[in-house]
Amino acid sequence: MKLKVFADRKSQPSRAVILFCKVNGIDFEEIKVDLMQKKQFSPEFKEINPMGKVPAIVDGRFKLFESHAILIYLACAFPGVADHWYPADLFKRAKIHSVLDWHHSYLRRGSVGIVLNGKLGPALGLPLNPQAAAEAEKLLSSSLSKIESVWLKGSGKFLLGSNQPSIADISLVCELMQLEILDDKDRNRLLGPHKKVQQWIESTKKATRPHFDEVHKTLYEAKEKLQKQSPVGEDSGMKSSLKTPLHSKM
Amino acid sequence: MKLKVFADRKSQPSRAVILFCKVNGIDFEEIKVDLMQKKQFSPEFKEINPMGKVPAIVDGRFKLFESHAILIYLACAFPGVADHWYPADLFKRAKIHSVLDWHHSYLRRGSVGIVLNGKLGPALGLPLNPQAAAEAEKLLSSSLSKIESVWLKGSGKFLLGSNQPSIADISLVCELMQLEILDDKDRNRLLGPHKKVQQWIESTKKATRPHFDEVHKTLYEAKEKLQKQSPVGEDSGMKSSLKTPLHSKM
Repeated sequence: MKLKVFADRKSQPSRAVILFCKVNGIDFEEIKVDLMQKKQFSPEFKEINPMGKVPAIVDGRFKLFESHAILIYLACAFPGVADHWYPADLFKRAKIHSVLDWHHSYLRRGSVGIVLNGKLGPALGLPLNPQAAAEAEKLLSSSLSKIESVWLKGSGKFLLGSNQPSIADISLVCELMQLEILDDKDRNRLLGPHKKVQQWIESTKKATRPHFDEVHKTLYEAKEKLQKQSPVGEDSGMKSSLKTPLHSKM
Repeated sequence: MKLKVFADRKSQPSRAVILFCKVNGIDFEEIKVDLMQKKQFSPEFKEINPMGKVPAIVDGRFKLFESHAILIYLACAFPGVADHWYPADLFKRAKIHSVLDWHHSYLRRGSVGIVLNGKLGPALGLPLNPQAAAEAEKLLSSSLSKIESVWLKGSGKFLLGSNQPSIADISLVCELMQLEILDDKDRNRLLGPHKKVQQWIESTKKATRPHFDEVHKTLYEAKEKLQKQSPVGEDSGMKSSLKTPLHSKM
């Protein structure tokens, strides 16, 4: 029976799982769980994931949720997946776990906090919260610095000094792509100072094309829609004081 | 060379790693990184973990941080560790990853938020924040419900319906033990409605004794010290409205 992936491409962990499947030629059926329609809370989906979150998978009779757990499972369960995505080597694998664990409490919290409180909230029926957005920005900025000084240390193009991407690159880059939703000036303020992060995002895009662009199409469309709703010059919920000079555009 | 564990027993993930080593007879040297003295930010410790967090390990030339990554590494690297702690079975292992990933964003955020904002803050030079404590309490309560209805579903004594504990039981129970720091009425209000959670905590204690009590001694001492500082009747930062009747004491 074909693997089923329950996801909404509006969610970054959903995109990470779909991207991983596509890049590795895993045969799967994508079943949309529409977050805008709150389908993740439907009784049908609660049978798949009682936590009411996407993504989730069903592989035969086996059900699983949490994107990192899914990525690890897929890398192990499908023999065609190349070793570099989730190396069998004990030490390399441990370091990938370390990045993935770190991601939860730092990069993801910062990224979700800023996107939700600074821009996306109203589309989901939540108010903008400039104070929460500012706190999230602080966490996100320090997380980006840590990615640069710790995880991207060395000469490799990918996390942990590797020359080939792992599931950690997929997860973290898909998270950072969510910043596309922000106004360009805000996104550039955040990513501008982090040259190495920008190069790494580009390397991950390149390594996973053409699937990367296809999987992120929904995101670019959402960005366009949001930009039309808030014309240039209109203030977002974020304190876009643009303290840091722009070095480059993403 | 002996495994080095850099930890402070005041931190719940530190206790989880130390407890795991002790229960499994792993020969290790415990090196205290005093959080009260902010030693986690010292240049010496930053050489071990540039993120400035405990626990961290050094095994020969290999350095690792993030407690879940460490627990998985230890379970794999030390042949004496019984399979039930981190089963080789692909499906069982995937479920354990799912619990551990879930823990980061739900149980841990709720638990840390309530302890820090509702009680411990001043001891660390931070103000009490009743609003943040109330938000954390909401997250913690819903996490406890999910543990009961999802992770403790079935008849097994441990998470995922198992009859033997895994690294997930160690991590989550050590997290919940931090609630000992709260005033008894607050802790009972939180845990009182969750009978199955209470039984599971007891089962995990029992399965890991006498090490469990020894490793948590620091916590009980800290609790006693805090209780002396705030005599009975004095209001903590928490809104202890005691809406829920007490079913049992922990």
